[in-house]
Amino acid sequence: MQVSIVGATGYTGAELVKILLHHPRVDIECITSQSFAGKRIREVYPHLDTELVCQKLDLNRISLESEVVFVALPHSVSMNTVGELCSRGKRVLDLSADFRLTDPCLYEKWYGTSHTQKELLKEAVYGLPEVHGDRIRGASLVANPGCYSTSAILALAPLLENRLIEEEEIIIDAKSGVSGAGRGLTLDTHYPEINESLHPYAVNSHRHIPEIEHEIGRIRGKRIDVTFVPHLVPLNRGIISTCYARLKNFSQATDILNVYRNFYQGMPFVEILPAGEFPRIKDVVYSNRCRIGIATKEATRRIIVVSSLDNLLKGASGQAIQNMNLMLGLDESTGLK
Amino acid sequence: MQVSIVGATGYTGAELVKILLHHPRVDIECITSQSFAGKRIREVYPHLDTELVCQKLDLNRISLESEVVFVALPHSVSMNTVGELCSRGKRVLDLSADFRLTDPCLYEKWYGTSHTQKELLKEAVYGLPEVHGDRIRGASLVANPGCYSTSAILALAPLLENRLIEEEEIIIDAKSGVSGAGRGLTLDTHYPEINESLHPYAVNSHRHIPEIEHEIGRIRGKRIDVTFVPHLVPLNRGIISTCYARLKNFSQATDILNVYRNFYQGMPFVEILPAGEFPRIKDVVYSNRCRIGIATKEATRRIIVVSSLDNLLKGASGQAIQNMNLMLGLDESTGLK
Amino acid sequence: MQVSIVGATGYTGAELVKILLHHPRVDIECITSQSFAGKRIREVYPHLDTELVCQKLDLNRISLESEVVFVALPHSVSMNTVGELCSRGKRVLDLSADFRLTDPCLYEKWYGTSHTQKELLKEAVYGLPEVHGDRIRGASLVANPGCYSTSAILALAPLLENRLIEEEEIIIDAKSGVSGAGRGLTLDTHYPEINESLHPYAVNSHRHIPEIEHEIGRIRGKRIDVTFVPHLVPLNRGIISTCYARLKNFSQATDILNVYRNFYQGMPFVEILPAGEFPRIKDVVYSNRCRIGIATKEATRRIIVVSSLDNLLKGASGQAIQNMNLMLGLDESTGLK
Amino acid sequence: MQVSIVGATGYTGAELVKILLHHPRVDIECITSQSFAGKRIREVYPHLDTELVCQKLDLNRISLESEVVFVALPHSVSMNTVGELCSRGKRVLDLSADFRLTDPCLYEKWYGTSHTQKELLKEAVYGLPEVHGDRIRGASLVANPGCYSTSAILALAPLLENRLIEEEEIIIDAKSGVSGAGRGLTLDTHYPEINESLHPYAVNSHRHIPEIEHEIGRIRGKRIDVTFVPHLVPLNRGIISTCYARLKNFSQATDILNVYRNFYQGMPFVEILPAGEFPRIKDVVYSNRCRIGIATKEATRRIIVVSSLDNLLKGASGQAIQNMNLMLGLDESTGLK
Repeated sequence: MQVSIVGATGYTGAELVKILLHHPRVDIECITSQSFAGKRIREVYPHLDTELVCQKLDLNRISLESEVVFVALPHSVSMNTVGELCSRGKRVLDLSADFRLTDPCLYEKWYGTSHTQKELLKEAVYGLPEVHGDRIRGASLVANPGCYSTSAILALAPLLENRLIEEEEIIIDAKSGVSGAGRGLTLDTHYPEINESLHPYAVNSHRHIPEIEHEIGRIRGKRIDVTFVPHLVPLNRGIISTCYARLKNFSQATDILNVYRNFYQGMPFVEILPAGEFPRIKDVVYSNRCRIGIATKEATRRIIVVSSLDNLLKGASGQAIQNMNLMLGLDESTGLK
Repeated sequence: MQVSIVGATGYTGAELVKILLHHPRVDIECITSQSFAGKRIREVYPHLDTELVCQKLDLNRISLESEVVFVALPHSVSMNTVGELCSRGKRVLDLSADFRLTDPCLYEKWYGTSHTQKELLKEAVYGLPEVHGDRIRGASLVANPGCYSTSAILALAPLLENRLIEEEEIIIDAKSGVSGAGRGLTLDTHYPEINESLHPYAVNSHRHIPEIEHEIGRIRGKRIDVTFVPHLVPLNRGIISTCYARLKNFSQATDILNVYRNFYQGMPFVEILPAGEFPRIKDVVYSNRCRIGIATKEATRRIIVVSSLDNLLKGASGQAIQNMNLMLGLDESTGLK
Repeated sequence: MQVSIVGATGYTGAELVKILLHHPRVDIECITSQSFAGKRIREVYPHLDTELVCQKLDLNRISLESEVVFVALPHSVSMNTVGELCSRGKRVLDLSADFRLTDPCLYEKWYGTSHTQKELLKEAVYGLPEVHGDRIRGASLVANPGCYSTSAILALAPLLENRLIEEEEIIIDAKSGVSGAGRGLTLDTHYPEINESLHPYAVNSHRHIPEIEHEIGRIRGKRIDVTFVPHLVPLNRGIISTCYARLKNFSQATDILNVYRNFYQGMPFVEILPAGEFPRIKDVVYSNRCRIGIATKEATRRIIVVSSLDNLLKGASGQAIQNMNLMLGLDESTGLK
Repeated sequence: MQVSIVGATGYTGAELVKILLHHPRVDIECITSQSFAGKRIREVYPHLDTELVCQKLDLNRISLESEVVFVALPHSVSMNTVGELCSRGKRVLDLSADFRLTDPCLYEKWYGTSHTQKELLKEAVYGLPEVHGDRIRGASLVANPGCYSTSAILALAPLLENRLIEEEEIIIDAKSGVSGAGRGLTLDTHYPEINESLHPYAVNSHRHIPEIEHEIGRIRGKRIDVTFVPHLVPLNRGIISTCYARLKNFSQATDILNVYRNFYQGMPFVEILPAGEFPRIKDVVYSNRCRIGIATKEATRRIIVVSSLDNLLKGASGQAIQNMNLMLGLDESTGLK
């Protein structure tokens, strides 16, 4: 089976290439790059052991052979390419934010531009396999979730589905490595500015907020407002999301690990830690896993759920491959272990 | 005026030496070190430009000349030395945790050892100048606060004193550099284990919890349970505490910056940032400042207060000098700018 | 085929486990650990996706089933275990320094202890496949090279074999990440001591000096003294060795890339960069590759050869697997791409 | 005394502001910034505790009041501003490279642009106080040395002045933190690109080469070609230069520490370490010191000299203040301890 990658020289694009080079069931047909067209991708990323040459984006050529196309373009740029590919009958995995919010007004509000593919929005499936696995299998367009969103939703979904917490008190304090900000140059990601520092950013205004609220609201069946504060941390890869909520009934705390284990039973990439243990970024980077640790405290009925993942893998490209596997009827962990 | 430092070769002890070497009003009489007695401290810390030689701890010698003694020993070791010094009429600044909790039972519960200086506990003043400045001026024994505690209490005190928040919902998500763990060797602070990683630790069990609860409870006039989750972050110095609470009445949000500015008016080391701005660790390290940024969100009546400081300065040795200045009737910022 | 790992919970041992878990031709029979016997190795290294349990070292048990045994014990501890295994007819890969120096007096001089397996020393083959590939194929005992040694010898071997440089002027300025120092706790590897720092160490006294001198002397056919200065750098993995020498005849400079390409022709893990390009650590970590870049300067007949590799892979465990592949008659890159 | 800083919002400019704010003998009259004119500098660098507002560069205004002007502009931009200020009779400290090479042809060769102030070039004094102290005292224009150059020249000067080494074999292997590359955004200084990496750059082509060759050639009285390879290292501040040479006569090795101590006698910022000790970056950052350690090896007559300094202080702004002190007849360490 042939697949192509549009936008292969960003960090998530390069991770896609790296995984797919060793995927036993698919071959990379074509990779595109606006900035490096004509160059072998190993000239940009020498750790990629391949002679693949970056192409200019030519939708016709891609559409000829590839079964599935990954689109790893910036948001608002992505939607038109996705639209073209879908209209040519390709199955598409979009790693941008363009098809994550089903409501075009919400998209416009948070991304500051109107959505040009409103019809497609209705077809897109939110690509979180642990929640939407069945729908992803049949999807023609998968909107791959944001990295923070993945970590937060996986941490909170079991609580919401089982109606265990007071929904108005959810707080997500997230910490991310710098690769999450992409390969574009900014002062915030200039080495001497973020090394030996750490700071919150986009407080109450990060674009993953509507995504998280939409998904956990869908699980719970009602609108939920979350507090979400991301922090930029001086390391390359990895996210820790420390989530806080209040249990409705503290007596349920003793059973909480089972609730999580049942929710994620049979799911190969989510691991619930024993009581008293918490995840570390070092244990998840370079893997597609999300590890989750949980604590409760009676005096305040508090529950603390800490989830960790590699923002470029389970938070982006690894998850996209997992989704592709489902779309192609393969075992979801093919090529990811 | 002469001062001495007991335990000068730990990280906080060395910071005390560094500041006091340039303090215009006091001279260092004696520094002690169990591990490095007989060595010049610059052999241990070459950045310290002094010929001072570490002594064995000799309480009589210290007591002869020094007006004020800093004790930077591990908790439970510190209390007896402090007791001896106080009984000899010295004014003491204790950087350990031994005199922070006024209730000896609480101390025993959290530190696993009984308190041998119960009488002295009653005399000790909690050395947070922005809250207890008047009492510090006259104190003979000051218990210098913990680094996390300082950042959390400074973030929350104005809200509690003005009864603006629902006390049962306070959450403190703290991130600290590795020097906070001290100079003792542990696997968690072994370079390859924490570099490129990040993890929560001591969830619901960190010893700064009773300290924070005690102090903010005292401000509010009632018992308060907090949720406190510290995280170890791969950088040397600095703490960011992201504090979450719920406003009783959201209409007060518009005035919140003024509440903070009034509370900290005239205090040289606390800086309230303009609306929409948040502190970064890089802006406070190597200074005695605590910078605080605030956001609110109407839908959930949420208030987010982010405070940052250098754990070795405002979180330890800088604050100790600030306290010493007050005790000696000096301007509190002497030697700290 | 079954293999075992003695000393599986150090950094190199854990890398061996990680690679061998996915090796298509061998299975891990047994892993041993003195500190963690009875524990699953994933409790120590959660990124290892296996249920393997660490055993106490039981030479009889290991000897029953395993074809090949990796020994990843500290030097001077290793030799006796290696001796026992060899006497039981096992083929052994020793990752310690114990069998790298063929002269027991030299060993005693540099390691401060006498060698107890002098007979075995004669049989041991130095496990640098690019130099000793043929002998490794038939070896029963392979002494896996040191990380610095591998980077230096690969950088210098083509020059020496072709007698292009003045041998008395070789300088190797090496920079290594901290994992090279192992998992044992030391002040030098305590996070706040090495983060944001960098320093040379073991100047003129590092134990890889006799190893490098021995190997390049063997290639050249005469005794060679090198200057070798390693530096500890604040990053986890990777070595850059910047090697300086003087060409005997500068006219040969134009052909130098061909000399290197010929020397390493058909060798899958050494990559010679085009003129003007130099390796970066980020391009080799997590791979078994060694990348080499070269520059010359006429005024001083200087040649500069920069080699980089991952100290835990091509500098240790990856190379050990490469050696095992040769010993077992497999393609040398099996399980390493 | 009034001083001004042209280009105050780059890293070296901000360091100048920081030091001068606490300098007991001079006041900052004016700071200029092209990018941040009209803003308080503390909005750009919140750690700077001052209300100073950045001005547009107005040479007339600066010339009115300031005795001394620091120019911290990019090379080739700087020279014209320096020319204007000198023609108005100001004493100038130029932190760019524009007046370091006395030969305008050499400047043109290495900087790719012709020099517009050839007359001024003759007046400029190379601002390395330990070598040119006397000339700096009377200078009207001081060319502040490059960071690498300072570390290399201080390491080599005593050897050359005393004719102890073979000049054709000098090698300088330098490692620098990322702030040395300035505040401009480049892919090489994008956090995820350099964190956990390390690489040589500008091999045989770095612009500090002619500067080093010129200065050490002047000391020795003959043309000297050096080999200089800088490496970018993932830390914020600091340089280690490991310099290699060959002693003409190894019997002089025993006296080598005395040679260095004599050369730097009475100089407050150069510290020669005892035999067997070597500098670490952590011991010099945030100070104006250069620490030097030395080793020799008889077999190869090798001498290894390791020097370390803070690239923003002794390698730039601290040294500029030291030069200013000399120009103004002050003790050279005023404001620098």
